[in-house]
Amino acid sequence: MGDTQQAREEALVQEVLASFDGTGDPRLKFVMQALTRHLHAFLREVRLTEQEWARAIEFLTAAGHITDDKRQEFVLLSDVFGASMQTVSMNNEADANATEATVLGPFFTEGSPEVPLGGDISGGAAGQPCWVEGTVSDTAGKPIPGARLEVWECDEDGFYDVQYRDDRVAARGHLFSDADGGYRFWALTPVPYPIPHDGPVGALLDATGRSHMRAAHLHFKVSAPGKRTLITHIFVRGGEYLDRDAVFGVRDSLIADFTEQPAGAPTPDGRELGTATWTRTRFDIVLPDAT
Amino acid sequence: MGDTQQAREEALVQEVLASFDGTGDPRLKFVMQALTRHLHAFLREVRLTEQEWARAIEFLTAAGHITDDKRQEFVLLSDVFGASMQTVSMNNEADANATEATVLGPFFTEGSPEVPLGGDISGGAAGQPCWVEGTVSDTAGKPIPGARLEVWECDEDGFYDVQYRDDRVAARGHLFSDADGGYRFWALTPVPYPIPHDGPVGALLDATGRSHMRAAHLHFKVSAPGKRTLITHIFVRGGEYLDRDAVFGVRDSLIADFTEQPAGAPTPDGRELGTATWTRTRFDIVLPDAT
Ligand SMILES: [Fe+2]
Ligand SMILES: [Fe+2]
Repeated sequence: MGDTQQAREEALVQEVLASFDGTGDPRLKFVMQALTRHLHAFLREVRLTEQEWARAIEFLTAAGHITDDKRQEFVLLSDVFGASMQTVSMNNEADANATEATVLGPFFTEGSPEVPLGGDISGGAAGQPCWVEGTVSDTAGKPIPGARLEVWECDEDGFYDVQYRDDRVAARGHLFSDADGGYRFWALTPVPYPIPHDGPVGALLDATGRSHMRAAHLHFKVSAPGKRTLITHIFVRGGEYLDRDAVFGVRDSLIADFTEQPAGAPTPDGRELGTATWTRTRFDIVLPDAT
Repeated sequence: MGDTQQAREEALVQEVLASFDGTGDPRLKFVMQALTRHLHAFLREVRLTEQEWARAIEFLTAAGHITDDKRQEFVLLSDVFGASMQTVSMNNEADANATEATVLGPFFTEGSPEVPLGGDISGGAAGQPCWVEGTVSDTAGKPIPGARLEVWECDEDGFYDVQYRDDRVAARGHLFSDADGGYRFWALTPVPYPIPHDGPVGALLDATGRSHMRAAHLHFKVSAPGKRTLITHIFVRGGEYLDRDAVFGVRDSLIADFTEQPAGAPTPDGRELGTATWTRTRFDIVLPDAT
C-alpha cells in the first residue's frame, strides 16, 4: 500500500471520529468514537473485500429476519464471539473469593415457583434426580441467611420448559437460604444441549468447525440485600463440551463434582427413589458487597 | 482493575480465538480471529455496561426488523460509520492519477436507458438543467473511446426514480465516450437529500448531533475493457453538507465547479432553455488498468 492510499484511509477514520465530536452525551461520544476506531482497525487489518462486506450485510439481515420475540439471533451472535461473556466478566469484576459470574442465557423467567428447602424444582421434568446443597456467605465467610436463589435448567432432552408449546413450568424454582446460609434442593443432573443453530449463527459455527453445544450446567441467580447479585452456572466435571462450550460460559471455578449414586443408596433427606440412580453436588456461593 | 480480572479477560479472548483454530478456510479463520481481537479490544476499552450491551442488541434487532427488500438499515449503519467508504477505498487503491472512487449507494439500477452523446438523462425529472462534459482516459492520458458511463441522480425534491410508487425511469441513463474519449450530456444540477432516517440509524444520528443529509452529487459508474471499473460521484463545490456528508462519500478530488448560467445564456449544443437558468460542469475521468 502506498503513502497516498494510507493517508486516504487514515483521513477517513479521522473524519468519522470528528463526526461524533458534537455528541451531547460524553459516554455516547466515547463509545461511538471507540467503536469507530476499532471497526476501522479491523476493516483495514483484514483488507475487507467488497464481496465480504456484502456477505456481512447479508448475515446481519438474515439474523434480523430470524429474530422475533422468542428467538434472538443477535444475542447468539454476541454469545458465540464471547462478547456476552466478556461483558458479564467486566461487570462482575473479580473481588476476593467471590463466586464467578457467567452468562444469563435466554431461558430465565420471572415468577418461578417457590420450593421449600429440600424441595424438588423439577416440576415433573424428566431426568436423573440430583441433590444440590451448599451455603451462601459473604467474602469474609459469614453466612447469609435469607438469600434468594433462583435455579433453572433443561430436562433430559435438553429443553427448557419455555421451549415447549404448552405452558408448563418445570425444572425451575426459587428458595431461600436458612439461618446458617445453607440451602438444599432436588433438581435434575444437567445435560448438554445445543444452542439454536438453524440460523446464520449456526451456519457460522458450521463454517468454522465449531460446536453448537453448551456444556451441561445448572443456572443460579443469587441475591441478598447489600450484596452484588450473582448470575452464574455450575458445570458437570468431566462432561463433554467443557472445553468447547459454544458461548464460552465455562469458568474453571464453576466446574463441580456431580457424584453418581447407585440405585438404592440412601438419600440425604430419606427420599425414596426406587430403582433410580441419582447424583449429588455441592456449590458454596460467595457474594461480594454491592458497590 | 486487578491482575485476576485482567487475566480472566485476556484468557477469554484467547479462548474465543482458539475456538476458530479448526476453521477450514484460512481467510475465514483470519477474518474471524481478527474480528474477535478487535471486538474484545473495543468492549474492554469502553468497559461496556450490561445496559449498553442490551441497547446494542435492541438496536440491531430494530435494524433487522426495518430491513426488507426495499430498505437496508445495515447498509446505512455501515455507511454512517464510514465502513462502506473505507471498504470502497481499500478495494480501489490509489493508482497514479486515477479518479477516486466513492460509495455506490442504494439507488443504482441495471437496465438504464441509453442516451446519445449530448442527450438528456433527466427523463422528465424536475430540476435545473445541467450540462456535464469531460473525457475518459487511462493513467497515461490516452483517451478511452467507447467507455460506458452510467449516470444517475435524484430530482429537485431529493428523490430517485425508484423511490416513487410508480415505475418511472428518470434521472438515469448510460452513454459511451466518443473516439476522443469525450462525453457530454444534459442532467440536473444535483441537490442534497436525506438518507432514510426514520429507523434506528436515524435515531443514532440524532443522538450524536449528526446530519442526515448527503451533499449534492451526481453518480457515475464508468467501465472499459481492461480497466478497473470506477464507481464514484461528483459533488457540487460550495454546496452545503460537503463537510458533513452522512456517509463520508465526499473526496476533495471529486468536488467540481457547477457554474451557474443566466437564463438565455447560449447552451453548448444550442438547446433552447427559455427563461430557465442552468449550470455546467466538467469531469475528466482517469481509469487505471484492471489488476
Ligand atoms: Fe442454559
Ligand atoms: Fe446518491
